Amino acid sequence: MTDEALVLGLDVGGTATRALAATLDGTRRGSGRAAGGNPTGLGPRRAAAALAEAVGQALAGLDPAAVRHVVVGLAGGAALPGGEDLPGGEEFARVWEQAGVRCPVEYGSDTLIAFVAGTDELEGSLLLSGTGACAIAVKDRALAARSDGHGWLLGDRGSGFWLGRQAVLAAMAELDGEGPQTALTALVIESLLPGADADRRAATPLKATPRPVAARDLVTTVMAQPPLSLARLAPLVCAACAAADPVAESIVESAAAHLVTTLSAVREPRSMTPIVLAGSVLTHPTPVAARVRAVLRERWPEVAVSLGLDGAAAAVWLALDRLLPPPDGALRERLFFSDPPPTEEVWDPT
Amino acid sequence: MTDEALVLGLDVGGTATRALAATLDGTRRGSGRAAGGNPTGLGPRRAAAALAEAVGQALAGLDPAAVRHVVVGLAGGAALPGGEDLPGGEEFARVWEQAGVRCPVEYGSDTLIAFVAGTDELEGSLLLSGTGACAIAVKDRALAARSDGHGWLLGDRGSGFWLGRQAVLAAMAELDGEGPQTALTALVIESLLPGADADRRAATPLKATPRPVAARDLVTTVMAQPPLSLARLAPLVCAACAAADPVAESIVESAAAHLVTTLSAVREPRSMTPIVLAGSVLTHPTPVAARVRAVLRERWPEVAVSLGLDGAAAAVWLALDRLLPPPDGALRERLFFSDPPPTEEVWDPT
Repeated sequence: MTDEALVLGLDVGGTATRALAATLDGTRRGSGRAAGGNPTGLGPRRAAAALAEAVGQALAGLDPAAVRHVVVGLAGGAALPGGEDLPGGEEFARVWEQAGVRCPVEYGSDTLIAFVAGTDELEGSLLLSGTGACAIAVKDRALAARSDGHGWLLGDRGSGFWLGRQAVLAAMAELDGEGPQTALTALVIESLLPGADADRRAATPLKATPRPVAARDLVTTVMAQPPLSLARLAPLVCAACAAADPVAESIVESAAAHLVTTLSAVREPRSMTPIVLAGSVLTHPTPVAARVRAVLRERWPEVAVSLGLDGAAAAVWLALDRLLPPPDGALRERLFFSDPPPTEEVWDPT
Repeated sequence: MTDEALVLGLDVGGTATRALAATLDGTRRGSGRAAGGNPTGLGPRRAAAALAEAVGQALAGLDPAAVRHVVVGLAGGAALPGGEDLPGGEEFARVWEQAGVRCPVEYGSDTLIAFVAGTDELEGSLLLSGTGACAIAVKDRALAARSDGHGWLLGDRGSGFWLGRQAVLAAMAELDGEGPQTALTALVIESLLPGADADRRAATPLKATPRPVAARDLVTTVMAQPPLSLARLAPLVCAACAAADPVAESIVESAAAHLVTTLSAVREPRSMTPIVLAGSVLTHPTPVAARVRAVLRERWPEVAVSLGLDGAAAAVWLALDRLLPPPDGALRERLFFSDPPPTEEVWDPT
């Protein structure tokens, strides 16, 4: 354990909490990963437990009293500079106390952090499509405007949830005789009712033929799970699209159109500021990402488009930006690229 | 207490359970009303408790051992003649035991019962729009085909839920600057954020002006409630439509088109069999009902269109149909029209 000064950055999402500790020159010292920690979605106690676990891992073998500044990015964190009004604010304060972290803790929007993960410019736009979808405009490295991000029930058009729901609707339409044949039907049945196909193969002239899968069976399975589980089916649209299925291609086309509309709502048509893409649907090589990029190239041909991947590193960078001297390009390079950025092995939009 | 023979009919919905006891000539002897009793939605224990309460009221002062046949209409009851595979089947069996009812109990589909409530024909179609929406084809007074009824997340197009969600989306679109002005915006804000308007009136030059309501505020309120609560906003679409609001008119038009599509999927274009309309959106004088009726008159000009209102009486009628002599027209008249049919004082699509 040394007494070198540290900063701590956290990227708190609905399904994973990531923490990163670094020295003032941007050298990574420790990292942590825990379950989701969004207090709005998961409740303050589970959120605080995830936060504590990720912080504990990141500071293992380090002196918590040496931490000079903490930045935490989380959904809805934008309007909460001190975290006082945060759902779970008290529980979070206890985490810092018990971890021995005594410096200021700043709560920021996860979308702003995703923007900073993609660029060191002060101004630009972020387009995010993961489980949900939204766009923000950034000015002076602060949130200036926002569009969509209205959640799965009323918005998030073009998100992983939206794609997964469209996949099920396409399969239901075919099964109900209301829509065209599509490769999605078999993929959705295989994913939602993994036994159904085996049952059918096992049917012999001696056994009763099981009745074919109906739209109703898909509904029953989907309704038995939390709605957001539909986001897990988003990769099926990409798979069917790769096989040139016209229904899947048209879903991808609509998703991309929705996302570009969401971005355009917060971006001047002639803006030259950078665009950052974030969220698993846009940071993985999906057909939605390819289509969005093609439209962006057409509409803003001269604009830099980058990926916002490492939210914890971006939170560290924002923490360093609060201290002196301000971080420079070399530091950013060291911080973001000394380790490979975190990506999931399997594309999972949740 | 006399020893005259009785039958018992139940209409078990998500928000109300109605029971009716009658003599074999169709004279009403007792009725009961309790909370929702759908075992799929509410769990077997709450469902059984509601059933027990409604049955207890209907049989108060009557001899339960005199009941010759029971018919229970409930969602998903179609494939469950004995109720054995019913979620809550065991709990339901205990209700009959404790009530002292020892005759056969038959579980039928709530939609079939709604059809029988509207006509004594053996064949025809039912179009229902309440909280949810579906259509069925009836042959030999049994369920022959079904369309939609796929629930709020994946279907129920043109239902109360669907109307309520469209109202909120229209308000959000105006607030986000993405959609036209509509009378729905003020109605939705008043309904979801009853304090917001008062706050604004209370703002004086001496107090800080409160920030205007944003789409986000509507999202937060909606997401804090169960999704089906959106059905409570359906009357707002009707109110705005009555005031000739073009956005509301277009929502009503789409709802009616969806419902007619749902009906057409289970009905031959040249069928002369009757059409029964059920569910609060279609049995109340709403603009959706008016529009649907207009389309039906155009498409099936010679066909009788009636309302399926009294599900408990229809269940009694089906129970009598299992006994001898079969019920005749005079009995039906007595059973359905000796008391006013049950209607809600305030239109509430839930």
